[in-house]
Amino acid sequence: MNIALDMMGGDFAPLEAIKGASAYLWEAPAPAHLFLIGDEIQLQALLQQYPLKPENFTIVHAAQIIDMHEHPTKALKEKQQSSIAIGFHLLASGKADAFISAGNTGATLVGALYSIKPIEGVSRPTIGAYMPRENGSLGLLLDAGINADCKPENLSQFAVLGSLFVQHVWNVEHPRVGLLNIGEEEGKGNLLAQATYPLLKEDALINFIGNIEGRDVFLDKADVIVCEGFTGNVMLKMAESVYDIVKRRNIHDAYFDRFEFEQYGGVPVLGVNKPVIIGHGISRGPSFKNMILLAQKIIEIDLIEKIRKSFRSQ
Amino acid sequence: MNIALDMMGGDFAPLEAIKGASAYLWEAPAPAHLFLIGDEIQLQALLQQYPLKPENFTIVHAAQIIDMHEHPTKALKEKQQSSIAIGFHLLASGKADAFISAGNTGATLVGALYSIKPIEGVSRPTIGAYMPRENGSLGLLLDAGINADCKPENLSQFAVLGSLFVQHVWNVEHPRVGLLNIGEEEGKGNLLAQATYPLLKEDALINFIGNIEGRDVFLDKADVIVCEGFTGNVMLKMAESVYDIVKRRNIHDAYFDRFEFEQYGGVPVLGVNKPVIIGHGISRGPSFKNMILLAQKIIEIDLIEKIRKSFRSQ
Repeated sequence: MNIALDMMGGDFAPLEAIKGASAYLWEAPAPAHLFLIGDEIQLQALLQQYPLKPENFTIVHAAQIIDMHEHPTKALKEKQQSSIAIGFHLLASGKADAFISAGNTGATLVGALYSIKPIEGVSRPTIGAYMPRENGSLGLLLDAGINADCKPENLSQFAVLGSLFVQHVWNVEHPRVGLLNIGEEEGKGNLLAQATYPLLKEDALINFIGNIEGRDVFLDKADVIVCEGFTGNVMLKMAESVYDIVKRRNIHDAYFDRFEFEQYGGVPVLGVNKPVIIGHGISRGPSFKNMILLAQKIIEIDLIEKIRKSFRSQ
Repeated sequence: MNIALDMMGGDFAPLEAIKGASAYLWEAPAPAHLFLIGDEIQLQALLQQYPLKPENFTIVHAAQIIDMHEHPTKALKEKQQSSIAIGFHLLASGKADAFISAGNTGATLVGALYSIKPIEGVSRPTIGAYMPRENGSLGLLLDAGINADCKPENLSQFAVLGSLFVQHVWNVEHPRVGLLNIGEEEGKGNLLAQATYPLLKEDALINFIGNIEGRDVFLDKADVIVCEGFTGNVMLKMAESVYDIVKRRNIHDAYFDRFEFEQYGGVPVLGVNKPVIIGHGISRGPSFKNMILLAQKIIEIDLIEKIRKSFRSQ
């Protein structure tokens, strides 16, 4: 198993990516082989501080970096020697089984959509956001911002993609799917929610439990919460700001500590043909380690094939 | 000045409504005359406990109550002797200058829209939600849920309505208007936000400062934040749930205490021809008092005429 890691992505790259790779390789029981993609000179220098067994990793030199603020499509096209472009080459050619980046999110998405491509039948791949609940569990909210305008069919597919992730990665049997809405009863909501409700209700592939309101997102009501990416992104950023406020106000609370979204590592791009994981720009060592572990799990359980099979049956 | 108060609306009615009316009449420097609309026997009994000067109020008997869960249009039509229906009769006939209810929100809205009617030029009246900021100020987010699907023109009107409220009721000069969005730059967002941006930018009646993200809502960036009512309602309920979590976890913090939305009293229906204020179902005495004070201020500054004038000039 080979996992490709963009060493140049994120605010603290490549140092924190090296730390994460190191922690993963020393601590994981059966680690995958890592392709560390980035500036070879910088990486070799850091490896003096964080020595790794040579057989466990390969440095893949990348002469270019896609900056956080570059235009995704343009940058990916023009910077073929960037760590993100090389990562997708490795993934598309089958040399790597998964690719992880905490760099330019747009460029990683563009790479996932155009070089790896959506799974047949998936019209809109999606990324989610983890929502912490007081009982220690997480909910998966999706879409978290890449699909700002959606049709009912898109939300219906997000429900299937999210359910498969939660079932197989988090080992939740029959994940409960909730439709984000502004009322409890069927028939409530905006036109999109009204049209989505019957689709979810009739979908035998998911365990639909009905509408979920803004006040329910941090409660253990649904394992998967679907909405279009506009509202999803606003909620995610609002939740992130609550964490910032809690820290600023010097509040120490075990539950609110779990609003530090960085700790969860990254989120997978669900609905594309290979595992691609997108990290937060502020990712540090533990996040990188967690993203590699998540990639390993997704490969081991062959989540992609499970998604393909599910969409073939539709 | 006469203010009509629905004494039967809210989870703790009529007791808490009586407490609020009593506090207002004893404490306000120049109180308005109150029409207390509700079951006369119940009200008279409570007035033994909370005595008021007879010249300060009039009890208006209402033989019916619209329950919180009744269908708004149907209930308002069929229950002409309900406190809400009578309130709108008093308002429409000019006997009352404002009407306040913490009862069935839908029925109060229906009354505002169909008996008081939108101001000429306002295509969609709106209600907002107050967003507390750490520096002690409040932002006004609108729409907070009554207009789930909106056109760019609606958001543009919400911006004007919100600005007039914030300017004249909160005395903020040149209120900053932000467009809720999922990116900072112009051109970002869903189709609605993309189409709304240029309208706000070109509107000489408002002080548009650009896009506001989910993470900015609790910051003192914009005084008025506009969005469609789906996202607005989800955010409001998420913010309410943060307060619930804070209380449940026994966190004591002066800022998060301001997330107790009940303390602000109610929100006005902006864009209708008379002052109508909608209270939270869990309103208690201080909320009712604050709603009466808000109604008094709106009448005193003649906010309705200012809105009318603004929409005439468009």
